[in-house]
Amino acid sequence: MKYICFDTSSRTLLLSVSNGRAVIDVRAQEIDRYGSMLAVIIKQSMENSKLKVSELDFIGVGVGPGSLTGLRVGISTAKGMAFPFDLPTVQFNSLDILARPIDSERFAVLRRGREGHYYWREYRNGTPFGETSFTSTAELVSRIDASEIELFLDGEKDPLFNGFRISEVKRYDPSIMRDIAVEKFSGGETTKYSSLEPIYLQKSIAEINWEKKSEGEH
Amino acid sequence: MKYICFDTSSRTLLLSVSNGRAVIDVRAQEIDRYGSMLAVIIKQSMENSKLKVSELDFIGVGVGPGSLTGLRVGISTAKGMAFPFDLPTVQFNSLDILARPIDSERFAVLRRGREGHYYWREYRNGTPFGETSFTSTAELVSRIDASEIELFLDGEKDPLFNGFRISEVKRYDPSIMRDIAVEKFSGGETTKYSSLEPIYLQKSIAEINWEKKSEGEH
Repeated sequence: MKYICFDTSSRTLLLSVSNGRAVIDVRAQEIDRYGSMLAVIIKQSMENSKLKVSELDFIGVGVGPGSLTGLRVGISTAKGMAFPFDLPTVQFNSLDILARPIDSERFAVLRRGREGHYYWREYRNGTPFGETSFTSTAELVSRIDASEIELFLDGEKDPLFNGFRISEVKRYDPSIMRDIAVEKFSGGETTKYSSLEPIYLQKSIAEINWEKKSEGEH
Repeated sequence: MKYICFDTSSRTLLLSVSNGRAVIDVRAQEIDRYGSMLAVIIKQSMENSKLKVSELDFIGVGVGPGSLTGLRVGISTAKGMAFPFDLPTVQFNSLDILARPIDSERFAVLRRGREGHYYWREYRNGTPFGETSFTSTAELVSRIDASEIELFLDGEKDPLFNGFRISEVKRYDPSIMRDIAVEKFSGGETTKYSSLEPIYLQKSIAEINWEKKSEGEH
């Protein structure tokens, strides 16, 4: 199977490319000029594996949740590459990459959004349970049963989660990302490139101000 | 800390580079023209992180055991890069990369050498116990206590190990390699580049024939 997939939802870029035999995995943390580097690393990896865009069986892309700037770059790049040859695309949840290697019966993966807010998703026996949420820390704590659910945080531990079993996510690995993308493609879960959209549950400050203003008017 | 490290002891190339902030990890499996690709991937990764060879604090290289051709390419490249600026080098055992993520009290990591022979090293609580060995499967089986030691094989399971608790090594990860290299450098375990040598315990067919011939002469 020939594919490229990448996840740009955090400060760590994940990329995998395969020409059907060779597999190249790249993880780039804290690189400068993240946006332009994605194109550079895609070009290098495809050249290294002697692969042309027209030959790809699919393009996989992480749709978040996470950094909206990063997601816009990643999704735009996937759309741009898929467009000329009308290639199938596969979208995957970025939290699922973090969740896959975790060995726990019931857990939630958390990724910090704006101040005091988290993106999170619950998993049972490794499978997503429900949709991705974006809530304040207070709401998150009220919705999760500390005796039942272990928390895994992408980033530093937060003292607000005292009383929870909480640890940092250890692995954010391109090989896990490609496993997820290949499974989805093999299971027929493809998307038309024009329909790719980031998971963006966080209201912008502008939206919040607008709502406040609207409420004030009633 | 600024460094580059790589391991070329198997068909999977591992490479990590850091400019002190950004960290780029690459894992390339089954790539063509392995020998020349190492230089290409080094160049790309250093350019991507805006790093010059002269700025490196050290160069790390896996010295096997494993494919002698691969090791020659890796070690020669490390020597060539270290030479112009007399950079410190750090050598590490390639089996230690496989061993690090394994959670077992007593275990051995095995990597197949020539037909019917294995490179292997024992670990206790994650720390190497004794030197790396190269033995026939029969000798390996006689030297290891199946009730005490779990085996982890880099490659497919071998039916010869029936009666042992044996599984495939799951992770061969550049981030583990760089942890090992950085620890060694931080602990002062550097080597002069001219002293870098592969761990090569396997006698060549020529040596074996020579010994047979010599024995015949006595």
